Amino acid sequence: MATVDVPDLVTRARQGQPRAVARLISLVEGASPQLRAVMAALAPHTGHAYVVGLTGSPGVGKSTSTSALVSAYRRAGKRVGVLAVDPSSPFSGGALLGDRVRMSEHASDPGVYIRSMATRGHLGGLSWAAPQALRVLDGAGCDVILVETVGVGQSEVEIASLADTSVVLLAPGMGDGIQAAKAGILEIGDVFVVNKADREGADATVRELNHMLGLGEARAAGDWRPSVVKTVAARGEGVDEVVEALEKHRAWMEERGVLTERRLRRAAHEVESIAVTALRERIGDVHGDRRLTVLAEQVIAGDLDPYTAADRLLAALTGPAAVAPE
Amino acid sequence: MATVDVPDLVTRARQGQPRAVARLISLVEGASPQLRAVMAALAPHTGHAYVVGLTGSPGVGKSTSTSALVSAYRRAGKRVGVLAVDPSSPFSGGALLGDRVRMSEHASDPGVYIRSMATRGHLGGLSWAAPQALRVLDGAGCDVILVETVGVGQSEVEIASLADTSVVLLAPGMGDGIQAAKAGILEIGDVFVVNKADREGADATVRELNHMLGLGEARAAGDWRPSVVKTVAARGEGVDEVVEALEKHRAWMEERGVLTERRLRRAAHEVESIAVTALRERIGDVHGDRRLTVLAEQVIAGDLDPYTAADRLLAALTGPAAVAPE
Repeated sequence: MATVDVPDLVTRARQGQPRAVARLISLVEGASPQLRAVMAALAPHTGHAYVVGLTGSPGVGKSTSTSALVSAYRRAGKRVGVLAVDPSSPFSGGALLGDRVRMSEHASDPGVYIRSMATRGHLGGLSWAAPQALRVLDGAGCDVILVETVGVGQSEVEIASLADTSVVLLAPGMGDGIQAAKAGILEIGDVFVVNKADREGADATVRELNHMLGLGEARAAGDWRPSVVKTVAARGEGVDEVVEALEKHRAWMEERGVLTERRLRRAAHEVESIAVTALRERIGDVHGDRRLTVLAEQVIAGDLDPYTAADRLLAALTGPAAVAPE
Repeated sequence: MATVDVPDLVTRARQGQPRAVARLISLVEGASPQLRAVMAALAPHTGHAYVVGLTGSPGVGKSTSTSALVSAYRRAGKRVGVLAVDPSSPFSGGALLGDRVRMSEHASDPGVYIRSMATRGHLGGLSWAAPQALRVLDGAGCDVILVETVGVGQSEVEIASLADTSVVLLAPGMGDGIQAAKAGILEIGDVFVVNKADREGADATVRELNHMLGLGEARAAGDWRPSVVKTVAARGEGVDEVVEALEKHRAWMEERGVLTERRLRRAAHEVESIAVTALRERIGDVHGDRRLTVLAEQVIAGDLDPYTAADRLLAALTGPAAVAPE
């Protein structure tokens, strides 16, 4: 891949050129050598976007709901980014995903940027590149970023760690209530949406949800009490109420410093992950030196236990020698 | 928890006292401060056990098959350890798990040690303590260790990384063939067992399996060609053939140095994991120093990108200062 003019790309992305945004995300996804340059150029422009995570089982109407939320925010004059993370698809880039088709009503709107991402390696988890892609959309000037994932356990928890506000989507029937409790969804949802509310059982689902949220009533005074909203996203019904619930949660977080707290925790986690990955790479280098192999040989021979071996590996990695210029 | 006499515990475990083995595993599971002492005391006695992983979807008869294999190995005069890893259970220690009940025929046999383990944190994955528990059973003198997990994607792959030989269990019907291909089970199985072979569709499942394994025929000459065995584990039928297939695979691995290779890779991975965990802990310490928090603050303010922040964190961790006695 030819070297690109990163500052120029960032400028064009900030002007709202979708191809520049796409290119930046591709550099990020491809773990380009210019990834660091991209991140450095974007940094001064980040921290503006409000990140909303949407999750739910297949069939609850996630794409329809996302699309309806995009429309609502567009009516309010906001620039909107959508990051659709598909844990089951090996494809990335969006063109191959159904989401793109279902979101096609926004395809020609320059105020909307839609990107699909596959997860790489992480079975069922969020792509490692997702936080960086969020950073691109944020730096490119999006006011709101909707991150949509299929709920498969792990990813719900990870999305909560990426988002300022987490929306959990449910639909009537489907035994969602019980499932939700199981998957720990109740803990991560700031706003619950019962979509397809024109179907039988919607009120029962809302009741069950309220009941289960009530069970957690041991919540400290001053804690956020999750909202429950009914929608028929396909007809746009209830969507304004969802936006209202989101803005209420956002205002609540800002008032109490919770937003900054969440973002701090997110940034700390991100920095830590990058640092640990870099350390793993150094271990890889050491592996090239056969140091790890020699230690492993001593472990399987019973000459060394794995903890002592790890101590020696770390001493080799973190000793003064390792600080030599790379 | 009171300090225990670790060398004495190890001696008693090696004499075959089940309570000593149980105590050692509890020390490991509880991440006791004495974990390191336990590992150091066990190291000289490890490397003897042959580790067989068993995985398969719920309902294929994993516990029954494990129990039948235990009987077969006991008839051959082997000491057998069983580690049942239950990714869905929050409980550990075995007494609460159904496996224990189903394995009760072996409960009074001093040549069999059975332990159930829940996974902690790793959604659907193997417990972090599993490799250490294996090490305890190995050091305690087990000739064979059977590691049983429910197949839920990730765990199948992880079990393959722990075992010398991986057994994948299937049952007729259930659309297992297709599922197997999906979950990448075909790549990890050294021996495939079609249990409940008295049911309709058993031959079709064997055929489908052979066909799919044949598709991977692009395998290099000299590669292991997985065995497919039919069993009715509840009646003990075909179990001797499974043991035969296992011993054939083990002999094949020993002949070609594959066994040592697998164990080396496993030990290297284990040492690396422990090292990375220790580094994470050091980052945690730095966090206590507010260093990570300060960096995260700079990231959310846009003053620093996360990669540069990670560089600074690493410099602080791996610089000469960090080498100071802990």
